[in-house]
Amino acid sequence: MKARIHITLKQGVLDPQGKAISHALEALGFSGVDGVRQGKYIEIDLQEDDGEAARASVDAMCAKLLANTVIEDYSIEIES
Amino acid sequence: MKARIHITLKQGVLDPQGKAISHALEALGFSGVDGVRQGKYIEIDLQEDDGEAARASVDAMCAKLLANTVIEDYSIEIES
Repeated sequence: MKARIHITLKQGVLDPQGKAISHALEALGFSGVDGVRQGKYIEIDLQEDDGEAARASVDAMCAKLLANTVIEDYSIEIES
Repeated sequence: MKARIHITLKQGVLDPQGKAISHALEALGFSGVDGVRQGKYIEIDLQEDDGEAARASVDAMCAKLLANTVIEDYSIEIES
């Protein structure tokens, strides 16, 4: 199975990378950009065949390693 | 409108960050991981109201600034 994980900064947490992108877009002449937030996207190939077990395992991976849950949110999609 | 952009390394391009995550997961005791690929996820808030125009604008942003199209692929979702 394949797991797709999105890790994004929580609302209200300063995002300097997003700000830098926003400024760079403006400098390149792109107008009409109200805001940019950058996050991480991780794809994991799993041997696990059971969707529920895969989700539980990936949830533990996020909590223990992939996301900093103090400042980041994560969402998981499982695809067979 | 909101644009969600996924930027991933092209198939075949070495992904040291993904490899590092894979090794770290193994060291933490997570077995059954066949592979990990890390990409970027960017959300852009746009003033543009027209979906087609928004997509064209974001496509130009990706080609000019956000993605390195030599080694990276990108996909765009537009949400009103």
